[in-house]
Amino acid sequence: MQRVRELIRAVPDFPKPGILFRDITPVLKDAAAFARIIAVLRERYAGKVTHVAGIESRGFIFAAPLAHALGAGLVVIRKPGKLPVATYRAAYALEYGEDVLEIHQDALAKGDRVVILDDLIATGGTARAAYDLCTRCGAEVVELCFVVELAALAGRQKLVPLPVHALITY
Amino acid sequence: MQRVRELIRAVPDFPKPGILFRDITPVLKDAAAFARIIAVLRERYAGKVTHVAGIESRGFIFAAPLAHALGAGLVVIRKPGKLPVATYRAAYALEYGEDVLEIHQDALAKGDRVVILDDLIATGGTARAAYDLCTRCGAEVVELCFVVELAALAGRQKLVPLPVHALITY
Repeated sequence: MQRVRELIRAVPDFPKPGILFRDITPVLKDAAAFARIIAVLRERYAGKVTHVAGIESRGFIFAAPLAHALGAGLVVIRKPGKLPVATYRAAYALEYGEDVLEIHQDALAKGDRVVILDDLIATGGTARAAYDLCTRCGAEVVELCFVVELAALAGRQKLVPLPVHALITY
Repeated sequence: MQRVRELIRAVPDFPKPGILFRDITPVLKDAAAFARIIAVLRERYAGKVTHVAGIESRGFIFAAPLAHALGAGLVVIRKPGKLPVATYRAAYALEYGEDVLEIHQDALAKGDRVVILDDLIATGGTARAAYDLCTRCGAEVVELCFVVELAALAGRQKLVPLPVHALITY
């Protein structure tokens, strides 16, 4: 994971002044570093989950290969208006106003065990919404997992008592 | 691929009246069907590409596991304003107006060989923009590949003479 940490690029003032953005694109481009992330995740969740849920859109980048590596189903949690059949919706707070995530109502069912995956946890708002969506489908959320955690934003505290795991913490 | 075709769900009048939407989420949820897609793509591109480029956001779902399976680098082609460092931009036509895709200028370089992957080709506008972005980085585009092709919209004709491949055609 040290190599992964070195590859993550810190970009000041993006998307706006005062924000230090953690750019994972150099990690994705490095096949060995990307494979290391998937291997670590695979080891953690092998035999423990039936599905991997990815949060649009960077969550898909890790959720899809993890689901493939585990032989688990892939579930997509999307921004509003993208999923074509009946959905559940969960709102979460933004700095100004709110946003919404959706899941297909038939994406998961009772008895399914799911890990929710996203590239990054900041305030935890999208993660909480994703948790609510999976549980409304009847599934058990085994863990909320993130490649990068921005500890200063205390998202993990906001998610207590939910099980949270991060590979790299800043 | 017959099983994949059976799993793709046709949803009438989404996202608006008169459109028949091809919903791939039942394929993603079926680990064996999803694995079959990745296996077919892996066989096609093994030894032929150094990178896989995914178009946001459903392209990521196939590009990420394919890159992982090939041991290739993953490149993300994103909607405007999402990539934090210097980008190239390419506009493409929508029914009304236009939209833009971006790539990091350092995502690819001369000598790189890339397959561009998206879930679906309709009119071919986003695919053409993605092709332009990869070539502006100096890379050679080995093929534009789609899980689903909507042949009635003639996207493939619009991309002539570029190399185009689709797994399932409607």
